[in-house]
Amino acid sequence: MNATTRTLPVKERFHLPKGVIYLDGNSLGPLPRGTTERVQQMMEQEWGDHLITGWNRDGWMEQPARVGNRVARLIGAPAGSVTMGDTLSVKVYQALSAALKLRPARRVILSDSGNFPSDLYMAQGLIRQLGQGYTLRVVAPEEVAGAMDDTVAVAMITQVDYRTGRMHDMTAITRAAHAAGAIMLWDLAHSAGAVPVDLAGSSCEFAVGCTYKYLNGGPGAPAFIYAREDVAAEMQPALAGWLGHDAPFAFEPEYRPAPGIARMRVGTPPVIQMTALEQALTVWDGVDMQDVRAASIRLSELFIKEVEANCPQLRLASPRDPAMRGSQVSFAFDDGYAAMQALIAHGVIGDFRAPDIMRFGFTPLYLDEEDVRQAARILTRILTDRLWDAPEFRTRHQVT
Amino acid sequence: MNATTRTLPVKERFHLPKGVIYLDGNSLGPLPRGTTERVQQMMEQEWGDHLITGWNRDGWMEQPARVGNRVARLIGAPAGSVTMGDTLSVKVYQALSAALKLRPARRVILSDSGNFPSDLYMAQGLIRQLGQGYTLRVVAPEEVAGAMDDTVAVAMITQVDYRTGRMHDMTAITRAAHAAGAIMLWDLAHSAGAVPVDLAGSSCEFAVGCTYKYLNGGPGAPAFIYAREDVAAEMQPALAGWLGHDAPFAFEPEYRPAPGIARMRVGTPPVIQMTALEQALTVWDGVDMQDVRAASIRLSELFIKEVEANCPQLRLASPRDPAMRGSQVSFAFDDGYAAMQALIAHGVIGDFRAPDIMRFGFTPLYLDEEDVRQAARILTRILTDRLWDAPEFRTRHQVT
Repeated sequence: MNATTRTLPVKERFHLPKGVIYLDGNSLGPLPRGTTERVQQMMEQEWGDHLITGWNRDGWMEQPARVGNRVARLIGAPAGSVTMGDTLSVKVYQALSAALKLRPARRVILSDSGNFPSDLYMAQGLIRQLGQGYTLRVVAPEEVAGAMDDTVAVAMITQVDYRTGRMHDMTAITRAAHAAGAIMLWDLAHSAGAVPVDLAGSSCEFAVGCTYKYLNGGPGAPAFIYAREDVAAEMQPALAGWLGHDAPFAFEPEYRPAPGIARMRVGTPPVIQMTALEQALTVWDGVDMQDVRAASIRLSELFIKEVEANCPQLRLASPRDPAMRGSQVSFAFDDGYAAMQALIAHGVIGDFRAPDIMRFGFTPLYLDEEDVRQAARILTRILTDRLWDAPEFRTRHQVT
Repeated sequence: MNATTRTLPVKERFHLPKGVIYLDGNSLGPLPRGTTERVQQMMEQEWGDHLITGWNRDGWMEQPARVGNRVARLIGAPAGSVTMGDTLSVKVYQALSAALKLRPARRVILSDSGNFPSDLYMAQGLIRQLGQGYTLRVVAPEEVAGAMDDTVAVAMITQVDYRTGRMHDMTAITRAAHAAGAIMLWDLAHSAGAVPVDLAGSSCEFAVGCTYKYLNGGPGAPAFIYAREDVAAEMQPALAGWLGHDAPFAFEPEYRPAPGIARMRVGTPPVIQMTALEQALTVWDGVDMQDVRAASIRLSELFIKEVEANCPQLRLASPRDPAMRGSQVSFAFDDGYAAMQALIAHGVIGDFRAPDIMRFGFTPLYLDEEDVRQAARILTRILTDRLWDAPEFRTRHQVT
C-alpha cells in the first residue's frame, strides 16, 4: 500500500442508514458524505447567485469533460477520452450508430443473451430506424467470440451480466472482434468501479457505462462514453447536438463536430446531477482498483461459503470461479421474490431479477466481512423459518 | 382574478441576488425558493435513507409522468400527454424520427432559418444516419407556411425565435402543415412559461421544450415531449429504451412500446435534477398564463419605450407588434458584446447572441416595472458614456 492508498473499507465516506446492510450498490450506490452539501452549495451560490454566468464562472460548461477524466482513471482510459451526459441507453445508441457508420458494408450488430435488455432494445430501435438489412444477432454468452465473422459490424457486449455476475474476458473478445474486422463496444455498467478495467489496453473502439451503481452518483446520474482516440477523431455522431459542435456559440447553420470525444455531447448537461456525481467520485481518491477487486473477491467468497453452508435451498447462479465473476453473487430460488422482500424487511437489501434470481452486490468501499457474515445469518434465518409465509408479513408486504 | 390566482409578480417565490436585475430568465431561470431544501431532503431522506427502495417508495419511477402533468397545464396539453427526460435536443430527435416514420413516402424536414441551431443539427444528424434521400429544407421564417407541400414529412418550427423573439402563429402554421399532409412539430423552448400555448387546440402532432428557461428548473433541467393522443398510440420510438418499454422489469428480449407518451422515456431518469424541477414548478401554483402574458407585454413595451427614447444607438431587432413577440426584446448594436459585458458588470444581466444582438428576457413572475425602468436607466448610462471603453473596464473584463 503506497502513501496515498487507503485501506478498505472507507465506510466513513458514506451515509449508510443504521440497521441496514446494503448489498444493492450494484443497482444504486449509497449517498457519499459531502454530496448533499456540495449540491446545496452549487444550487445556492452558483445557480442562485451567479445565475447564467455560472456556465463560465463555475465551470459548468467544462464539467462533462472534467468528470469524464475522473471516470477515465477508474476504467483504464486516458485523460480526454471520456465525456459524460444523457443516459446509458442514449450512449449505447450513439456508440452503436457511430460504429455502424465505420463499417458501412456490414449489417450485423452482435450481442449476447446475457446483455441488459435496454442495450438490445436500443439496437432494435436503431435497426428499425435504419432498415437496409441491418439485424441484431443475439447468441449465448459463451458463443460470442465464435460468432464473430465478416458480417459483424459491431459487437456490443456487457462485460458483467446483470443477473448472474458472469464476466466476459475483455481482452479475448475484443481480439476476436478485431480479428473479424468488427468494431468492439463494451458496456461497463457493472464493471466501472467494480472490477479493474483496462480500456486502453483492450484497444476496443467504444465503451459506455452508468455512474449510479458502483460509482455512487445518485439515482439517474449521467452516463459516460469512451472512444479510442483514432476512432473519436473520425466518428460521425447520430445525435448531433449543439454542445457536440466545434463552436456551439457561433450558432452556425451547419453541424461541425467538435474534436474527439466532445462530439458525443448532445444538449445542455444536467449540472445539478453532474455536480452530485463529481462530488461522489471523490470517494475514490486514494483508492486502488486492485485493492477493491481483492476485497470484492474476499467478501463474495465468504458470502458464498456461508450461504452454501447454511441455506441448501439456494443454488449458486453465478460462476463459482471468482475470476469469472464481477462484483456480485446471485442465487436462484423459486421463492426468491418473496424471500428477498422478507430479507429487505429485515434490513438486508439485495434485489430480485425475474424469474428466480436473488442478487447481492459486494462493494468493498463500504462493506466489511462482519456485514457479510451478518447478512448471511439473517438470510439463513429467513430461509429456515420461511418468514415470508408468516401471515403478518404477507399482510404488511402484500406478498401474493 | 379568481380566488386562486395571484397578482404578479410573485417575487418572494424566488431567490434573487441583491443588486441584480435579471433579464436573462429566457436563458436560465433563477432559483425558486424551497428548491434547494427539497433537493436536500430528497438526497438525504430518499436516496440516503431509502436507497434503492426510493424508486417505488418515493415515487421516482412515476416522476417523469407526474412532472409532465405539471408542464402540460402550462402548455395547453391534457394530463397524460407529456413526459419528461433527457435534453431538448434528444427530444427533437425522438419527435423527428417518429414523424418521419409516420410519413414514409415523404423525404423533407422543413424548418426555418430562425430555428435554434441544435434543432437543425439534430435533423442533419438524423438525415446523415438515414440516407435514403432525406433532406432538411430551411426557409426564411415568413416563408414557412408557403413552403409546405406534399414532399414535406414534418415541419419542425420553434415558435419563438431565440434571437429576435419573433413569434410564429401556431394555429396558422399547423393548419398549413396539415393541409399539406405534413406532421407538425413545435419547439416550445421560448414559449413554455413565457406565452399562453394551446397545444390541444392547435392539433399539432408533437411538441418539445426545455424547462431551464421560463420554467426555472435549473441548469440542465430535463426536457419535455408531447404527442397528440392518436399519434402517441402509434408512434415508433427510435430511442427504444427500457423505461419506454411496456414492462421494463419483465426484462423481455424484445422491445414492446409502453402505451402512449411513456414510450418516449428512454433510460433511468435524473431523479435529483427532476426533483429540483418538480419543486420549481410549484411557483406556478395559482398563476394564470394569461396574466403572465399581459404583464410580459406591459414590461416589454415599457422597456422598448424607455430604450428608444434614451438609447438611439440601439435598433429594435424584435417585432414592434407585441402580438408578434414572445417574452423577450432584442436590440441590434455593433458594440453589443462589449456593451452587454459592461451592463452585466453594472448589475443588469441580459445576454448577447452573435453577431450583434443584445437580448433581454421579461419574466413577470419576478420582474416589475421599477426593475425595467432601472435596467433602462443603467443601459442608457452605459451607452451614453461608452463605459466599455474605459481602460479599467477593458482590463477587468478582458474585452478585446
